[in-house]
Amino acid sequence: MSGLHEECGVFGLYSPKKSHLAEIVYYGLYALQHRGQEGCGIAVCEDGVITAHKDVGLAGEVFSHRILAEMPQGNMAVGHVRYSTTGGNERRNCQPIVVNHMKGRMALAHNGNLSNAGELRRELELSGAIFHTTSDTETIAYIITKQRLIRDSIEEAVLSAMDIIEGAYSLVVMSPTKLIACRDPFGFRPLCFGRMSDGTYVVASESCALTAVGAEFVRDIEPGEMLIFSKEGVRSDRSHCEKKPKRICIFEYIYFARPDSVIDGVSVHSSRLRAGHILAKSCPVDADIVIGVPDSGLDAALGYSKGSGIPYGIGLIKNKYVARTFISPTQESRVDKVRIKLSAVEETVKGKRVVLVDDSIVRGTTGGRIVSLLREAGAKEIHFRVSAPPFLHPCYYGTDIDSEENLIAARRTPEEIAKEMGADSLGYLPMSALDELNLGAGCCKACFGGDYPTSVPEKAHKDKYEMKIQE
Amino acid sequence: MSGLHEECGVFGLYSPKKSHLAEIVYYGLYALQHRGQEGCGIAVCEDGVITAHKDVGLAGEVFSHRILAEMPQGNMAVGHVRYSTTGGNERRNCQPIVVNHMKGRMALAHNGNLSNAGELRRELELSGAIFHTTSDTETIAYIITKQRLIRDSIEEAVLSAMDIIEGAYSLVVMSPTKLIACRDPFGFRPLCFGRMSDGTYVVASESCALTAVGAEFVRDIEPGEMLIFSKEGVRSDRSHCEKKPKRICIFEYIYFARPDSVIDGVSVHSSRLRAGHILAKSCPVDADIVIGVPDSGLDAALGYSKGSGIPYGIGLIKNKYVARTFISPTQESRVDKVRIKLSAVEETVKGKRVVLVDDSIVRGTTGGRIVSLLREAGAKEIHFRVSAPPFLHPCYYGTDIDSEENLIAARRTPEEIAKEMGADSLGYLPMSALDELNLGAGCCKACFGGDYPTSVPEKAHKDKYEMKIQE
Amino acid sequence: MSGLHEECGVFGLYSPKKSHLAEIVYYGLYALQHRGQEGCGIAVCEDGVITAHKDVGLAGEVFSHRILAEMPQGNMAVGHVRYSTTGGNERRNCQPIVVNHMKGRMALAHNGNLSNAGELRRELELSGAIFHTTSDTETIAYIITKQRLIRDSIEEAVLSAMDIIEGAYSLVVMSPTKLIACRDPFGFRPLCFGRMSDGTYVVASESCALTAVGAEFVRDIEPGEMLIFSKEGVRSDRSHCEKKPKRICIFEYIYFARPDSVIDGVSVHSSRLRAGHILAKSCPVDADIVIGVPDSGLDAALGYSKGSGIPYGIGLIKNKYVARTFISPTQESRVDKVRIKLSAVEETVKGKRVVLVDDSIVRGTTGGRIVSLLREAGAKEIHFRVSAPPFLHPCYYGTDIDSEENLIAARRTPEEIAKEMGADSLGYLPMSALDELNLGAGCCKACFGGDYPTSVPEKAHKDKYEMKIQE
Amino acid sequence: MSGLHEECGVFGLYSPKKSHLAEIVYYGLYALQHRGQEGCGIAVCEDGVITAHKDVGLAGEVFSHRILAEMPQGNMAVGHVRYSTTGGNERRNCQPIVVNHMKGRMALAHNGNLSNAGELRRELELSGAIFHTTSDTETIAYIITKQRLIRDSIEEAVLSAMDIIEGAYSLVVMSPTKLIACRDPFGFRPLCFGRMSDGTYVVASESCALTAVGAEFVRDIEPGEMLIFSKEGVRSDRSHCEKKPKRICIFEYIYFARPDSVIDGVSVHSSRLRAGHILAKSCPVDADIVIGVPDSGLDAALGYSKGSGIPYGIGLIKNKYVARTFISPTQESRVDKVRIKLSAVEETVKGKRVVLVDDSIVRGTTGGRIVSLLREAGAKEIHFRVSAPPFLHPCYYGTDIDSEENLIAARRTPEEIAKEMGADSLGYLPMSALDELNLGAGCCKACFGGDYPTSVPEKAHKDKYEMKIQE
Repeated sequence: MSGLHEECGVFGLYSPKKSHLAEIVYYGLYALQHRGQEGCGIAVCEDGVITAHKDVGLAGEVFSHRILAEMPQGNMAVGHVRYSTTGGNERRNCQPIVVNHMKGRMALAHNGNLSNAGELRRELELSGAIFHTTSDTETIAYIITKQRLIRDSIEEAVLSAMDIIEGAYSLVVMSPTKLIACRDPFGFRPLCFGRMSDGTYVVASESCALTAVGAEFVRDIEPGEMLIFSKEGVRSDRSHCEKKPKRICIFEYIYFARPDSVIDGVSVHSSRLRAGHILAKSCPVDADIVIGVPDSGLDAALGYSKGSGIPYGIGLIKNKYVARTFISPTQESRVDKVRIKLSAVEETVKGKRVVLVDDSIVRGTTGGRIVSLLREAGAKEIHFRVSAPPFLHPCYYGTDIDSEENLIAARRTPEEIAKEMGADSLGYLPMSALDELNLGAGCCKACFGGDYPTSVPEKAHKDKYEMKIQE
Repeated sequence: MSGLHEECGVFGLYSPKKSHLAEIVYYGLYALQHRGQEGCGIAVCEDGVITAHKDVGLAGEVFSHRILAEMPQGNMAVGHVRYSTTGGNERRNCQPIVVNHMKGRMALAHNGNLSNAGELRRELELSGAIFHTTSDTETIAYIITKQRLIRDSIEEAVLSAMDIIEGAYSLVVMSPTKLIACRDPFGFRPLCFGRMSDGTYVVASESCALTAVGAEFVRDIEPGEMLIFSKEGVRSDRSHCEKKPKRICIFEYIYFARPDSVIDGVSVHSSRLRAGHILAKSCPVDADIVIGVPDSGLDAALGYSKGSGIPYGIGLIKNKYVARTFISPTQESRVDKVRIKLSAVEETVKGKRVVLVDDSIVRGTTGGRIVSLLREAGAKEIHFRVSAPPFLHPCYYGTDIDSEENLIAARRTPEEIAKEMGADSLGYLPMSALDELNLGAGCCKACFGGDYPTSVPEKAHKDKYEMKIQE
Repeated sequence: MSGLHEECGVFGLYSPKKSHLAEIVYYGLYALQHRGQEGCGIAVCEDGVITAHKDVGLAGEVFSHRILAEMPQGNMAVGHVRYSTTGGNERRNCQPIVVNHMKGRMALAHNGNLSNAGELRRELELSGAIFHTTSDTETIAYIITKQRLIRDSIEEAVLSAMDIIEGAYSLVVMSPTKLIACRDPFGFRPLCFGRMSDGTYVVASESCALTAVGAEFVRDIEPGEMLIFSKEGVRSDRSHCEKKPKRICIFEYIYFARPDSVIDGVSVHSSRLRAGHILAKSCPVDADIVIGVPDSGLDAALGYSKGSGIPYGIGLIKNKYVARTFISPTQESRVDKVRIKLSAVEETVKGKRVVLVDDSIVRGTTGGRIVSLLREAGAKEIHFRVSAPPFLHPCYYGTDIDSEENLIAARRTPEEIAKEMGADSLGYLPMSALDELNLGAGCCKACFGGDYPTSVPEKAHKDKYEMKIQE
Repeated sequence: MSGLHEECGVFGLYSPKKSHLAEIVYYGLYALQHRGQEGCGIAVCEDGVITAHKDVGLAGEVFSHRILAEMPQGNMAVGHVRYSTTGGNERRNCQPIVVNHMKGRMALAHNGNLSNAGELRRELELSGAIFHTTSDTETIAYIITKQRLIRDSIEEAVLSAMDIIEGAYSLVVMSPTKLIACRDPFGFRPLCFGRMSDGTYVVASESCALTAVGAEFVRDIEPGEMLIFSKEGVRSDRSHCEKKPKRICIFEYIYFARPDSVIDGVSVHSSRLRAGHILAKSCPVDADIVIGVPDSGLDAALGYSKGSGIPYGIGLIKNKYVARTFISPTQESRVDKVRIKLSAVEETVKGKRVVLVDDSIVRGTTGGRIVSLLREAGAKEIHFRVSAPPFLHPCYYGTDIDSEENLIAARRTPEEIAKEMGADSLGYLPMSALDELNLGAGCCKACFGGDYPTSVPEKAHKDKYEMKIQE
């Protein structure tokens, strides 16, 4: 409900023997669907021949039973779910991208955003490169390809590419014989791997996708690490590890990831419970019930309840059928969009002083509508609590907020926002509390504090590449 | 997750002036989608001409922006969501059904199941009737049509039809000039109405659909009551009221209805909270955490927590993208269906004694899989608690369980079921506790106790009408 | 190009053993597609269970490889292609219609139009009948059903129905065990049957469909004849034969049927050649080349060439990709619809005096555009010749012209029409020449002469049943 | 029916003012659909922004009314119809291709085949290029892009590219401000241009597409010529003209092009008439009737009739609904594919000695089936005449025959082929007669004589690029 969007999720399989891997990738993408709802794709490698299917839409929309059944058997596969931030939502920008180059074919799936993408693209263009898409992934494909010409193997090419590309990338690369997974040295985006009982290796953005396909979690891929899956087994290259401080995106814990995922050793659910607990201490209020905005606010609401001693209640119900195919009410419509998605449970909130917990406020519009729903249902007081600090700065590492203009917290005080939303009070998790979340070594908190771990593009070069193309 | 299915939901609009009603019906169906996911339809009446669109699928699949926009403006409309119990899921059985007869046209949307459908159908066939569908609704249409030939008005025809048809029916009938809503004298299925700020009347199976479209709840339609919406306003006919004892289906509270709905004066959410609370008292257990099976087990789990003092936790996450278009894993698949839909939150259950609350156990298979998921996640003990008594008898009033063969509780003791599922214990809500739920005057509990309020068909006549037709 | 449309085509199979009949019906419908392009359907009977699939669109659009493969094997099947004359083009009006009645199930496919449909429908409605469609076929289904209640077999019921229904009907009825084909006593619409090498009987509107599926033509079904295909073999009932004078629609020869079909012993191609030949004699002109409007004017053009001695040429090319999915240019479009479909061959007509032959002129608009195309291509003179008399009267027997308002010949002299179209002269086949066509015993020429073989409905009752329904 | 396929058709528009050009391109593609039925696309340039839509399928399948309406207005547009020879039929290979490069965006549509494509591709790959498609067009885009980096304008870049690429290309290139059309110096594929009454310039593969959209034919673009359409009007660059001998593909006249097109001053219809005429002289036979295989054999059949004095007849009817969506009968099917598409007119051929004229024999299978159809219909003798010499050598310039293995004439004598097909005799147009066709300066007849105008690839490099990708 918050209006924030992650950019992508990746998934990969390497199997000792050929089988119908496309089906497993499909279920893996289902488990990662929350990371991207605009497009998805699967590429399978059968004896070096790569077959791919991708399109805009949810996994359940893009893949019919028939399309899935017609994908070849293989011993490697890559999958991707996408949320597009640049340009429109176009089929051609869907991943995995598959390219031919001097040394053969290659499929790539990428989660993240390069901070030097514009610069790299300009250089490539100056050497005569042409671009079919507007995504960073094509730039990465070029860089790897150029390196491949002067390196002995695909893994060396990827390693060299890691010296050139900057920013956030969790990447799965499939060559005719190898599956390579790597994570940028800051570790902005998560990436982990596991093993199925038949020896198939599984790489995924989040551990929930390993569980979904019945794989056992082995470990997170470390920031800067590259794993090579091949006939020889798994090999780890750590030559880029610890070149940079670890900077895992804190919003993965707060909002993006699924609560049942464990990222870099920390349970997402627990980190949210804890955030709610700390929030209860730092922004206390005298109230009768604590409710969460489903789905992402529920964990923190339960934590607030535990931290404050105020009973937890189910105060908002989310319509579980509202998905991508939903037709939004028009401006003139008599029907309110938020009402279609959420409704208040009158019995829970009527006559009560309500603590309403959510994970973020972006524009404040949805929050205001929810406050109205609760008022109508008879809530006496509504105290809005946000389980994160105010979102003040654009993100250049793979989320879709890149302009301060859309961030209400950048322009208003909490009191003003509370008033605008019709809430009786508004409290954010204090910046200082982030350290108490025990998220481990290091997090990127640039969206809250503005302390970017990399140099930041002077000006977004999006327009330059904007191109409306439907294939 | 439980395998139980409601048959249908109905929605109707009567407006003083012509407008784009189809859009409002669409959102009403979205709110009622949980009552039927196999098909849906909308019929609009514009100056006496009825235009309908219906098909198999969810509202979001059947209605595109374009189809909706092309539906005419009108001053009356009817909508329906369907779960099919007889035969396959066929387009021709979708509702509203629209028929031509001597006195004009008529659209019908029906929730329920007649107990004398087979008998009525045979009689009609003996007089030369032909049937295009296999649904009870076509039988009702015939009965009303026959009555219409000898009555002065559509409302009198419907009243007479209510003397003939028996069983469960919440019905919305649209003639060229009137919208009629009626509920069978037992009141098996819910039906209520409300008003929008512009004077449009809204009829719906559940109050949540009134809220979704921004209508104010007026009241439930009483068992046996008929409401006629026309140029003259609303008129109530109560001549069938109190002919029968009230018998609202108890499963509407326990499982079918949305928790934010209020049926016959009782909040669904509250009744579930209370069931959980009573369950804690009647089936106590020494444990560390209480978790619910999402979505329908969450309210009772919270009630169990409050009743027992054991902390409430979020222990299972449901994949919110699993909808109708989901491709089920094949038998040979390495992927487990339940894993795709549900996953355990390890942090919540690891090393804990867990109380797992759900609303029902039908075959026991899903329950067993969930127990496995929790074991894998490290739960030390798992105590399964069901917020309803054992389901022992078939239902003839509009749910999809009509054979004892599929009901595990009819064949096994709770201990045997617990063992089969791998749980440490299993407890059901005792029959005696149902009265403590304060559900008002009278409920149909035939599925638990076998005390059917009507005579029951000797043998289901379904096969006779079975016909595989795709239009 | 002429704007005239046939209403339907029917196809049926009876096989001694079960096999994948749907595929054969599919190709039969392909061969009959020219008789109806708006909808089609196939119903298969497998051990008494009827499975049907039907929708709006061409056979190639309605049936995918998958849909066809999923239809069950059976020993009987019925198919239908439809052109809708009443109301819009609605899925529910597609055929075969499949109904349940007292004695079981029945599928019907019908080509023709009843002249007493309105009257019969009113009577049925007075007895409480409800109608789901607006087609005559549902009325026929009711009549047969009512008769079935008082007759010993489906064939007796059909025989009795033939006493009640009046007008044009070539009908294929499928009961759980028998396939029945009958043709009205006037024989307005064609119907014939053949045999495949494995003993499967094939019924079809035109012999071209027998040839297409590799069946050997046996003979035409006679006006008034009923054939019963069952385990006992084929049986013919001729009790309605010769009750009426034979009145095969002359437009089947002139325009509707495929030139490779042979109807009631007369080759369609030959009858057109002969019409052209006679036309050359009755409307001679001094010219350099004879060209036909593709496709239906080509045979007559060749006949005109032979009759006149003027060389035959290929002067107009039809775009073979223009089918149903074609998007018509809008009114404001700079592109002309006729140009998209037809183009002139400059080499053929430049500087020439051209005889342009077509089978009919309905509104005259298309004819005018074709004349312009030829002028642009340099034709010096254009003499329009029509291989039929002027179309002056509405048809009540299954074609789509039922109003004199649209018939230019009813309002203008040939000279006026020639002028309006820009042609140098216009000649029709004289009424008197129709007898020279050697079409056998008797033809219905009511559209030319107004001599209707049955009583004619006082006023078309179409509006009464008009109902816009999409399922 | 012959199994030969052209590769593509191109279409372009340059308009002095912005308007809805996509609609005009759509109708242009309809007129060129015979040149490629596997995919199509349209790209529109609106103020320098290029919007494209393309997919596999016929124009009528790829473009719905809605998609067309949503394409922006613009002042330039490019369209393409495609028949794919390499790999499968994939969406990604559809054209126009649209790329971003250093100096902006570019759309390309290409008809033909480069003879040095493999070599160029290897060179590009060695410089780090990546390829998304397997078509020559992407190679051309790279070559132009590389030249653009060192040239002052897009037209100079295209001119330089013409020095590098070899083989067959009729090309339309759209930059943000200019539309460029060029034809290779041999002129293998046709290309012409015209003007609409509002001053819009139209470029098309064949003149029939100019006529279809109401444009006046101006002239053919000459072999080696480049036209630049811009704000400054039209400019012709002839610096590559007459560098090579003219070698227009003779099969354009014999088979590929539409008979109403005029290519390089010669009417296609006339050239076929003449071929038939010469064929009658060189391969005479005593017979009763001459018939053609529709559609492409009809013109030559009429010529044969005129040349021989034997009457012309309509002996075969082609089912006009058989298009791309047609489901081919399976191997086990009782239905014969050729019967579905073609049927004999018994009246025309029964008891007759028939001359059967077609434009080519590739494998001989279809020809054999047609002979059977005619025998069944009672033809006494069947004399097969082919309006071209035997097809003996692969083509490297844009048709889909690149292996001698599939060419029956390369392995059998005419007598053997006649016997295999069941014909009484077989006659080809003699090589020597080609000169009598008056096709102007020079034709490529390499498929008949093996005299290739360019060096020929040692071995087709198709496999190397084979990649199965669906986007």
